[in-house]
Amino acid sequence: MCADTKTVRLALDAMGGDNAPACVVRGADIACRNHPHLAVTFYGDEARIKSFIGKARHLANARVIHTGEAVSPDDTASQAVRRGKTTSMWMAIASVADGEADAVVSAGNTGALMAMAKLQLRTMTGVTRPAIAAFFPTVGEHMCMLDLGANLECDAENLVQFAILGQAFHRSLTGKSEPRLGLLNVGEEEQKGHEYLRVASRQLADPELGINYQGFVEGSDLTNGKLDVVVTDGFSGNIALKTAEGISALFTRLLRRSLASTMLSRLGYFLARGALSEMRRHIDPRSYNGAVFLGLNGIAVKSHGGTDRIGFANAINVASELVDHGFLPDVSEAIARGNTILEQKKEDA
Amino acid sequence: MCADTKTVRLALDAMGGDNAPACVVRGADIACRNHPHLAVTFYGDEARIKSFIGKARHLANARVIHTGEAVSPDDTASQAVRRGKTTSMWMAIASVADGEADAVVSAGNTGALMAMAKLQLRTMTGVTRPAIAAFFPTVGEHMCMLDLGANLECDAENLVQFAILGQAFHRSLTGKSEPRLGLLNVGEEEQKGHEYLRVASRQLADPELGINYQGFVEGSDLTNGKLDVVVTDGFSGNIALKTAEGISALFTRLLRRSLASTMLSRLGYFLARGALSEMRRHIDPRSYNGAVFLGLNGIAVKSHGGTDRIGFANAINVASELVDHGFLPDVSEAIARGNTILEQKKEDA
Repeated sequence: MCADTKTVRLALDAMGGDNAPACVVRGADIACRNHPHLAVTFYGDEARIKSFIGKARHLANARVIHTGEAVSPDDTASQAVRRGKTTSMWMAIASVADGEADAVVSAGNTGALMAMAKLQLRTMTGVTRPAIAAFFPTVGEHMCMLDLGANLECDAENLVQFAILGQAFHRSLTGKSEPRLGLLNVGEEEQKGHEYLRVASRQLADPELGINYQGFVEGSDLTNGKLDVVVTDGFSGNIALKTAEGISALFTRLLRRSLASTMLSRLGYFLARGALSEMRRHIDPRSYNGAVFLGLNGIAVKSHGGTDRIGFANAINVASELVDHGFLPDVSEAIARGNTILEQKKEDA
Repeated sequence: MCADTKTVRLALDAMGGDNAPACVVRGADIACRNHPHLAVTFYGDEARIKSFIGKARHLANARVIHTGEAVSPDDTASQAVRRGKTTSMWMAIASVADGEADAVVSAGNTGALMAMAKLQLRTMTGVTRPAIAAFFPTVGEHMCMLDLGANLECDAENLVQFAILGQAFHRSLTGKSEPRLGLLNVGEEEQKGHEYLRVASRQLADPELGINYQGFVEGSDLTNGKLDVVVTDGFSGNIALKTAEGISALFTRLLRRSLASTMLSRLGYFLARGALSEMRRHIDPRSYNGAVFLGLNGIAVKSHGGTDRIGFANAINVASELVDHGFLPDVSEAIARGNTILEQKKEDA
């Protein structure tokens, strides 16, 4: 084991993602180099995993549990669940449910991962639908957004609960007592957007709920540093997240092209490269890889399927930090409190 | 008039947008400097407009039609329509409906502009719902996306019609005979997303419809240069568009900060500034300002409400180009053809 006193035990689905298992094993190698207190177990094709472990430098004590099957990216959630218990994804989650691991990380099929995680880790008491959350760069501090794709259609109640989950999650991880929260819409004016957004907005503005609510926000506000948590449905969240990725890729490519275009610009780049690599790190999607399933009785982290080893290592870091922070009781308490207030409001109405 | 032989007559809503009427008049000044064949008429508060025209250099022949009222950003579409006929927005559109102008440009309330444009210019025969379209930068050629906010909720039929509109629009403006078209979703796999997306996708894949259909695409594909037209509902389109704006602003700010951070990076910037300003132009949201209302019997262009004079000048350029291209008959013909095929399919089924 790559471990010391406070060991964090991670179950890794080695067969999930575009470059599995290579990317998973290499990512774990980087993570274990940086965090010697990690103890990792890979779930998947033993021979293939071991061939990559053989070339790794920090995985001498990693365990491998062989699984004959893997969830396919084309599987629907229900197909994956039916195929179920012999897949690397299911078995990795099972080890968290059984208490053998502290968290699971997978770059596999999101729908399948959520369905299996719900079945095995169970939804937290009081939570209607778990959501997927992640942190993003802004001009100021990082901002947390949810849902990123678990719930394509949402009603007002779901969104209010995502707000409570997101606030508790952000508070637990950053220590900021009153994170500023916005609801994503197509305009800031009260009358904008779908009816369920307007209903959710009125509830979030109720001071009794204890949300530091900033009102409707637009896509252009996601990066302005004025928000700590942004709530949206899973379809819009996923579109926003991936559009941001696309624009980042466009910029990086254009910047590289510009700086290589003339003798002067190449010399300029040579001089500025230190400062530019700092910036690149700040916006590199790999640095934000690792989305968290909120509202479950256990820690599950979803890596982007198309990431590389550096991105996967970051998803492992996210899981490790979540274990260190022990945020589950905070979230559970916030949901119980929020539900009590909302129930009371309903009765009063 | 700032005109020559082939005069393009533009009606400008001078009271729309955050910085009206200053930004509208100054934008028109830039546009008329670059395109002397423009003949502009401003609709709005005569005294205020004239005070800005007094400081302009290329608006000696611009006309001003006084209007006592303006649509507010907080108006719902129906409120704006009720207030109606004395507003700058209504009167500017009316001049296109009456044949006095070739196109209208407004930076005002999008919902009100669409509602008033539908009432006065009328929806094209065969079009169920007009949509808003605009061009965006990619790593390759520009890409056209629709709907950007006119229709927050869409069904399969709407999306298929947006595809026909978008294809005809792109073809007419660029001359590309088979623009590559994608449907925005949360994944590329067939089973992903809402049911209405899957229905639309099956219809778009039918070769008889004559769409060069590339299947489902994700937010990260918007900038990869592999698509010419992307179709989505107005809510998601608006989120994608504004998220892209936000990320652009973040990137620009970080780049400026990085390049100013050390003596070396400042020197590097000095050397590379020519190449960098080229890149900045390529991604400047102002260069893409000017969204087109597709599916109406007339040309209406919506400017971003928060743009500056350079952005507004670009929206005017878009309107002027649309008049030059005379794309309305192409779009109308494509819709008639598409509807005939779809009707035939329904009967055969």
